[in-house]
Amino acid sequence: MFSFNDLITGKRRRSRSRVFTLYFAVNSPCFLYSAVWCVVANVKPGDLIRVITSGGLVVEGVVLPSTEFTSEKHIVLKLSSGYNVGVSLENAIVEVIAEDYLKLGALEGSQGVTVIKGKGELRMAFVSTGGTIVSKVEYETGAVKPALSASDLVEFVPELRELAEEIVVSDFMRKLSENMTPEDWSRISEEVGKYLRSGADGVIVAHGTDTMAYTAAALAFSLRNLGNPVVLVGAQRSSDRPSTDASYNLKACPVIVKEAPFAEVVVAMHGSSDDIYVLAHRGVRVRKMHSSRRDAFQSVNDLPLAKVYVRERRLEVINRNYLPRTRSSEVLLMNKFSSKVALLKHYPGIDCEIIDYLVDKGYKGVVIEGTGLGHIREECIDGIRRAIEEGVIVAMSTQTIFGRVDLDVYTTGRKLLKAGVVPVDDMLPEVAFVKLSWLLGNYHGEEPAKIGSRLTTNLVNEIGGTQSLSVFPRWYHGD
Amino acid sequence: MFSFNDLITGKRRRSRSRVFTLYFAVNSPCFLYSAVWCVVANVKPGDLIRVITSGGLVVEGVVLPSTEFTSEKHIVLKLSSGYNVGVSLENAIVEVIAEDYLKLGALEGSQGVTVIKGKGELRMAFVSTGGTIVSKVEYETGAVKPALSASDLVEFVPELRELAEEIVVSDFMRKLSENMTPEDWSRISEEVGKYLRSGADGVIVAHGTDTMAYTAAALAFSLRNLGNPVVLVGAQRSSDRPSTDASYNLKACPVIVKEAPFAEVVVAMHGSSDDIYVLAHRGVRVRKMHSSRRDAFQSVNDLPLAKVYVRERRLEVINRNYLPRTRSSEVLLMNKFSSKVALLKHYPGIDCEIIDYLVDKGYKGVVIEGTGLGHIREECIDGIRRAIEEGVIVAMSTQTIFGRVDLDVYTTGRKLLKAGVVPVDDMLPEVAFVKLSWLLGNYHGEEPAKIGSRLTTNLVNEIGGTQSLSVFPRWYHGD
Repeated sequence: MFSFNDLITGKRRRSRSRVFTLYFAVNSPCFLYSAVWCVVANVKPGDLIRVITSGGLVVEGVVLPSTEFTSEKHIVLKLSSGYNVGVSLENAIVEVIAEDYLKLGALEGSQGVTVIKGKGELRMAFVSTGGTIVSKVEYETGAVKPALSASDLVEFVPELRELAEEIVVSDFMRKLSENMTPEDWSRISEEVGKYLRSGADGVIVAHGTDTMAYTAAALAFSLRNLGNPVVLVGAQRSSDRPSTDASYNLKACPVIVKEAPFAEVVVAMHGSSDDIYVLAHRGVRVRKMHSSRRDAFQSVNDLPLAKVYVRERRLEVINRNYLPRTRSSEVLLMNKFSSKVALLKHYPGIDCEIIDYLVDKGYKGVVIEGTGLGHIREECIDGIRRAIEEGVIVAMSTQTIFGRVDLDVYTTGRKLLKAGVVPVDDMLPEVAFVKLSWLLGNYHGEEPAKIGSRLTTNLVNEIGGTQSLSVFPRWYHGD
Repeated sequence: MFSFNDLITGKRRRSRSRVFTLYFAVNSPCFLYSAVWCVVANVKPGDLIRVITSGGLVVEGVVLPSTEFTSEKHIVLKLSSGYNVGVSLENAIVEVIAEDYLKLGALEGSQGVTVIKGKGELRMAFVSTGGTIVSKVEYETGAVKPALSASDLVEFVPELRELAEEIVVSDFMRKLSENMTPEDWSRISEEVGKYLRSGADGVIVAHGTDTMAYTAAALAFSLRNLGNPVVLVGAQRSSDRPSTDASYNLKACPVIVKEAPFAEVVVAMHGSSDDIYVLAHRGVRVRKMHSSRRDAFQSVNDLPLAKVYVRERRLEVINRNYLPRTRSSEVLLMNKFSSKVALLKHYPGIDCEIIDYLVDKGYKGVVIEGTGLGHIREECIDGIRRAIEEGVIVAMSTQTIFGRVDLDVYTTGRKLLKAGVVPVDDMLPEVAFVKLSWLLGNYHGEEPAKIGSRLTTNLVNEIGGTQSLSVFPRWYHGD
């Protein structure tokens, strides 16, 4: 038998193979918090374990980061067959066969995963999801398609090897980012979380630029208690073109992993149309603001976290309001996203029945992109009130993109507040959409009012910043 | 009998009361173009006329600008009862009782219309539609509501009287602009057109800022053959507050009417957060880019047309690509807007059934705000193809706001093109929405392919500009 103390700190470091029952865990105060994360403190995701359940069933597999917050007495194992299985831990006997079975190097040979050794000190993972950065021009048709492997990309950028001791390269998906779904966010979160738990100093995620900002926000919410940076990177021109911005952007990524004092999900893209610096934008404050420019990604209602001078391999922090790096912290994966959330842009004369349609389709959340301080046509307020009465969370953002919503100023806003609409302050509409999808996924069953309150509670600097005037860009007025 | 030449140039100038038949007009080449506009060349909107129809019916009324392009043998008269009536002109006898019956001064006494005399030379109309600029704080509740009359506003700004000989002030609507509909655009167009036809050197339209850019685009399309500027103006803080921007913005308007070399619909709002200058933005290229700043309105993919230094009453053109002023030209009113057009923002995982829903609801046009160069998730392409096959026009714009859509680069774009989607180049999503609503209103019955081709044909500099790099704003990156 193990003491509670042993469970947390003890035997794990000393023995390679241990047998114990979950008896103490299940009955300890620790269990009251979360069985899974107590077990995790002992049997980490990535460990290969054998479980003998109270019913006598024997299951062997690798512990996955659990997302089953609704069922706290289960653990999820990946079997050698590739299938995942949930196992009840109540009065089960657990044996650790191999710790850190899915440690960075150990992943080699998994589907699409290779390990590249370098000359540096960093342990990194490079997860490719697709997009222009891994695309090539198909010369028969002239169209651009995802065709490069993640390893090809790493080969393009010698800087990665120079700064890394080990890079686990995962050819995870080959999707154009317009096809990404909340389900994909969930999968990417899990993949990134796996490497962070396995000791990576940072994870680089290659991604299409079209919806990169949405995915960045999704990762920022789903990877809780982040200790190291996660860097999303993309390209506006495919990697096989002379004009590609892929390699310049990519070169900045290991610098961020090495030098960043922040542990946030960031987007690393060109800061200007020339190769002067790359910006590390906070994932929940960035937006693709141009369809084709290299410096299309810009921070909104916030400053970028840092500039990266690529040639000098130097990172300059320009926003000191960040979540600090802790390196040792254990990432919690909360990677469920509800697909029953809509983002609805308001326009003059919009047919208010669209609200009823969404309610009838079983939507649980609607983020409206209202006008100005957060308005919609008055005719729609009744439908919104009905939706809220039926338990739908209706949030209000603004299509001006910059600035905050404020429903206290005008009569329309006051009526919306009275109907129960949740104003999202200075949160981007797209981020509010991702956050509401994440909240409804992970806090399933909570009262709408509680979810609404979570929506407006700051988690990762996505809301309520102190905006300086300079955050609004300077527009060219002919001089 | 009158010759064709007489019809165009002749008797009208000489006689105050004339009788003629429409015989020649109906049978002349002129008629082939448009009976209404030929008649207009002789019997102008605003004239009080008597019509004796071929059936012997006698109708007296004021000629309204006709929008009935589908029925070319009719004219619309406003009767003294206030009702409008369509009258067949075929073989009718028409007598002009009073020319320019609705001339600027003659409008006084109409509902909500007053005429103010000034010391200057300009003849202007000031049409108030509502919004913050005519709002006051309601001190019991703290909310802001439209409560000032248009005359109150004019009183606030002595510059208006100083530059004007005559200002017709029309208290036309008191709407918060989030409540504006395409039907309101139609009414405002008619009201503005009335004054332009009556000889105004320019019309100033006070409007709420929330949807001002949409209305500006609507007027730009509906007032064809504009000879003088139409200036939309608003305020971010209500006119009764010390911090209001209303009077500064208003003061710029008569300067624009006096000095502008362009005859376009423009939005006149603060150019910076200080009182340095007002910008005159092209109505089809402007967007409210901040929920609360004075300089919230900014031009996108284009330069503003001019800066107005208010204190010096000086206008400086900063964009030479404008439609020039002709003063003498007769405005054509094409002010129908279809309410069966939707603006649909794409987001990851969007349920493609929304397209079917819109088709089922009888929508004739959908403007999608896609991602990047104009993409949506591939799953939706089938639904879009079906919609197009059923005659719906599906246009593609981009949610990056800046830049152009280009469906030729990626496979998704090529599939969309193949399905028949119309890419709107560098047109703002909101402007594409307004233009499609206008096209479907005024070219009702035309083939979808023809409407699609009109959508991408430049009318008032709304599409296909030559963008300089400087048009993308300079973002603050910490230095």
